[in-house]
Amino acid sequence: MEISTRTLFIGIDGGGSGCRARLADVDGRILGHGEAGSAAVRLGVEHALAAVDAAARAALRDAGFSPDALARTHAVAGLAGIGRKSVLAELEAHRTAFASVAWFNDAIIACVGAHGDRDGGIVIAGTGSVGLALQGGREIRVGGYGFPISDEGSGADLGLRAIRSALRAHDGRIAATNLTRAVMARFGGDPFEAVAFADNATATDYAKFAPLVMDHAEAGDPVACMAVAHAAAEIESLATRLAARGVRRIALLGGLATRLTAWLSGDMQHLFVPAEGDAIDGALALARRYASEFCTRRRGGAE
Amino acid sequence: MEISTRTLFIGIDGGGSGCRARLADVDGRILGHGEAGSAAVRLGVEHALAAVDAAARAALRDAGFSPDALARTHAVAGLAGIGRKSVLAELEAHRTAFASVAWFNDAIIACVGAHGDRDGGIVIAGTGSVGLALQGGREIRVGGYGFPISDEGSGADLGLRAIRSALRAHDGRIAATNLTRAVMARFGGDPFEAVAFADNATATDYAKFAPLVMDHAEAGDPVACMAVAHAAAEIESLATRLAARGVRRIALLGGLATRLTAWLSGDMQHLFVPAEGDAIDGALALARRYASEFCTRRRGGAE
Repeated sequence: MEISTRTLFIGIDGGGSGCRARLADVDGRILGHGEAGSAAVRLGVEHALAAVDAAARAALRDAGFSPDALARTHAVAGLAGIGRKSVLAELEAHRTAFASVAWFNDAIIACVGAHGDRDGGIVIAGTGSVGLALQGGREIRVGGYGFPISDEGSGADLGLRAIRSALRAHDGRIAATNLTRAVMARFGGDPFEAVAFADNATATDYAKFAPLVMDHAEAGDPVACMAVAHAAAEIESLATRLAARGVRRIALLGGLATRLTAWLSGDMQHLFVPAEGDAIDGALALARRYASEFCTRRRGGAE
Repeated sequence: MEISTRTLFIGIDGGGSGCRARLADVDGRILGHGEAGSAAVRLGVEHALAAVDAAARAALRDAGFSPDALARTHAVAGLAGIGRKSVLAELEAHRTAFASVAWFNDAIIACVGAHGDRDGGIVIAGTGSVGLALQGGREIRVGGYGFPISDEGSGADLGLRAIRSALRAHDGRIAATNLTRAVMARFGGDPFEAVAFADNATATDYAKFAPLVMDHAEAGDPVACMAVAHAAAEIESLATRLAARGVRRIALLGGLATRLTAWLSGDMQHLFVPAEGDAIDGALALARRYASEFCTRRRGGAE
């Protein structure tokens, strides 16, 4: 198979909360969009594959193509959790309906989306956190090994800190504030409701408290300010470490990025640049790059 | 039913790692011991009840009694996690083979065991942590709402800190030390092995790193020292809070208690007293107290 005018490219961003796909033609025109549920590999490789397939089929349908067009579509998918042991091998062992498919960690496609072909890094401050750069053909990674063992400064981390503080205030170990009262109110004032919450809480559940913490920090609540200042310092330390490895452009991404920016010290501001494109743009750019490679090397995907 | 020379008492300590029972006669003579698996209510009330029953039957067997003797045995069981919502009501709704049974949080029986009839408190530094006192007929509780939202200074907390530091050192965010290298070695030097660990790790799994952290702290490792000093300060703050509520005698209990003592500031030393007895002693003392109450009020248990 060669790249022809009928060749399609699809970029897929498979995060923890949902999977989004964008379909383009050889000239880079966007033809359609598709969405599906979470493609996080933590939920299982089969599950992730099904979400990617569903998002891709939705994008083809949106563009007016039949599912047969998958066979002339070169795909790149960035999935949350691909760093996990053996997951990449498992994904690559599966046949898919695509002409070719290459799998990446979702942070990689976000980095390519942010900087295109240039060297650069990203720091994500969302439900999780991670620093990642593509620099001189090498991948540099800092943190992002998941909550609670890593992901410092993330929404989950911020939520956990707020709950810990609320329970301390409940016991009288620290002074109660509007934030600690608001958090306890979510548990009906009963610490054992917090126990029940924690029994099954995921990082996403903890991160649901992050906007509340940001609101109270912006209103000057001392416990919230301390938590957010701590998170900002952690996020900044991811950027500092990338800078120490030679990274000169860093895009700050993720749901907390905008609100955290005000809390960063000025020291790193000269490194921060706006992202040129999003993670799906990155996946599409990689799909183009890998498709030409595939057409000579037959790398991955269906035969 | 009245208390007679044939009446038996059993104290049961149902912690997260196992359930231990001790059988005594009306004169307080210990007649037998029994053990069973975890009776933590986190694993389900039915599971906890089965563990309590198995430990009690083992103690009767050890004392040479048939299982029929359960019907003349007054029991008190302290179970890990009884503070959880509705658990106490669920336990009390079940019929058991005992003449009577009363259920308590495992920290309560430990506190009664430590101080007998006197007012006093305990601070537990084990897999989890909690401060609890029985003071003037009231229960005072500080912390102990579980890992990771609470249980500051516990073995699980110490383990989590060590893993977080090890991953930071792996990324070059902090200097590596013997401790961070030893932790990474447990993950084969691969941070994604730590990710895989964290996917399923319980507080008990995190706490397995605590002895390693203590070893390195005692050898002067800076990262380990910082983690242990932090844990000691947290444990001390539980005691400080109890003292602020009027508690004048505190027993420091749990697997980390002895090793952490060296790391406590001198300020609280005058409050710390050795425990008079263990948690099963406390449960037995309560069994005696509740049995006489039961024989007038028919409180709980079989009819």
